[in-house]
Amino acid sequence: MPEILVVGSVAYDDVQTPFDRRRDVLGGAASYFALAASRYAPVHVVAVVGEDFREGDIERLRAEGIDVAGIERRPGRSFRWHGRYDYDMSAAETLNTDLGVFADWHPVVPDGKRDVPYVFLANIDPDIQLDLLDQVGRPQLIAMDSMNYWLEFKRDAVATVMSRADVVCINEGEARQFAQTFSIIRAAREILDLGPTALVVKRGEHGAMLFLHDGGVFWSPAYPLEKVQDPTGAGDSFAGGFVGHLAAVGRTDPVELRRAVVHGTVSASFAVETFSVDGVARATPEAVDERYRLLRSLVDIGAGVVGDTGSRSE
Amino acid sequence: MPEILVVGSVAYDDVQTPFDRRRDVLGGAASYFALAASRYAPVHVVAVVGEDFREGDIERLRAEGIDVAGIERRPGRSFRWHGRYDYDMSAAETLNTDLGVFADWHPVVPDGKRDVPYVFLANIDPDIQLDLLDQVGRPQLIAMDSMNYWLEFKRDAVATVMSRADVVCINEGEARQFAQTFSIIRAAREILDLGPTALVVKRGEHGAMLFLHDGGVFWSPAYPLEKVQDPTGAGDSFAGGFVGHLAAVGRTDPVELRRAVVHGTVSASFAVETFSVDGVARATPEAVDERYRLLRSLVDIGAGVVGDTGSRSE
Repeated sequence: MPEILVVGSVAYDDVQTPFDRRRDVLGGAASYFALAASRYAPVHVVAVVGEDFREGDIERLRAEGIDVAGIERRPGRSFRWHGRYDYDMSAAETLNTDLGVFADWHPVVPDGKRDVPYVFLANIDPDIQLDLLDQVGRPQLIAMDSMNYWLEFKRDAVATVMSRADVVCINEGEARQFAQTFSIIRAAREILDLGPTALVVKRGEHGAMLFLHDGGVFWSPAYPLEKVQDPTGAGDSFAGGFVGHLAAVGRTDPVELRRAVVHGTVSASFAVETFSVDGVARATPEAVDERYRLLRSLVDIGAGVVGDTGSRSE
Repeated sequence: MPEILVVGSVAYDDVQTPFDRRRDVLGGAASYFALAASRYAPVHVVAVVGEDFREGDIERLRAEGIDVAGIERRPGRSFRWHGRYDYDMSAAETLNTDLGVFADWHPVVPDGKRDVPYVFLANIDPDIQLDLLDQVGRPQLIAMDSMNYWLEFKRDAVATVMSRADVVCINEGEARQFAQTFSIIRAAREILDLGPTALVVKRGEHGAMLFLHDGGVFWSPAYPLEKVQDPTGAGDSFAGGFVGHLAAVGRTDPVELRRAVVHGTVSASFAVETFSVDGVARATPEAVDERYRLLRSLVDIGAGVVGDTGSRSE
């Protein structure tokens, strides 16, 4: 089965919602991504942690079958993020980011992993993303994520990463920010003009859209949840399900890209049900399949109905 | 073909967006609804206008085949609404509402129209909605809309209208307001517990959801538009396409309710492309069909693909 290589943060989060708070919990884009993607295909993580990182948390990833050989441990503090959500739970307010050992780190792809066919550049300094890209061969698929901070302060580097990626996965506000337009259609066109085959625009509780370079558009609703505990990691888990599905089927054609969006949506739904990575970690293949089917049924006009022209003359 | 009766405002709007402003343009929930629904089935409007109402605007509705015999003209001013949209165009801020002749009006269903099978109670004082309901027989379908003002100041009357309706169409924020919960799933349950068979939750640019009393859920994306000029009337036009489709097919089963949501979404897309009712008025059957097909293709995993289990073992 095709394998997946991810570079990104493995970190500790301090998360506040209007209802609860958790400190020093396992987080980081690569952690969420790896746990979600490992439900689909073998995952190799390239990251760095500090002296304060608990060995038990590395072990937790390893116990899920994730290859942690590429997680370096270096002197200094681990990456820490402190964020807060308001009642609408749609966007995090970052109270503090401490890059710690990531600040002057250069990723090293372990021997034998330079030809892994599916590569995900999780949200991190775009210079680290480019550094990693320079170390891999010609993967079958390169997907990337970013965030408002890098779009603002390292826009050119982010654009370079986008131009080398096959799939760009960012959230709606970031797409608008990058393209400096409110129109998501225009923003998509601008990003796709940089070179990627596909753009996934994540819209939180409103689902996700896929824009293809050939003009195709696909839209999946979010999985309807009665209770969202912590949105942290939703986008990273989305990417895990998305890239995971593509690796599992070994194809990246438009049909599989659309299915991958639904799998990403499913992964994100598990992530937001709990604090930290607990929700993603406990998603069983059966639970994933069940949510996939429910998501597809949400857009189904009716079982047993052949054709759906919606014509008024029916 | 089954006919439609609507009660609601026929009014003049003064609308400001960040880009433009229009004063004294034809508006009102019943105007938008009637123009959208008249693409599907014959529509009878019950409303009241003041002495200041331009005969040409009544004529404009009549020219579209709408029965305007139930539009009374009374001494006083017509209903006027003055609203403003911010850059995100998602919610109107009401700057002023002048009920005018609607303030002490009692609707009168014209002779011969008491047994019209499809009834829509457009957003208006819930006491007017109840007054109309008391004058009709046993319609095949009663659908209703409301807004935040009535939910706040006449909550019990709105709940009574909901309990007598088959379909409640309100927007997401209003559903949350009514049920006093952020969870749209819980809000849907609370509203459906009042008695209606179906609840349509309108989410603006994020589409619409249908919740059925039997537990079924359907979701349609909004029609992706590059340019939105004026969101006024989107919800009323949605209802017009929704009820219009049901009347046209003469059925209200779950399959047709789902299709009706897509037709509603299409109608709304025409409404928001222009100020006033111009967009709805110029929607041709061909344009409606084309947008319906595009909306369905947006959620289609892939043409020619049989089955879609999304299974990882495919």
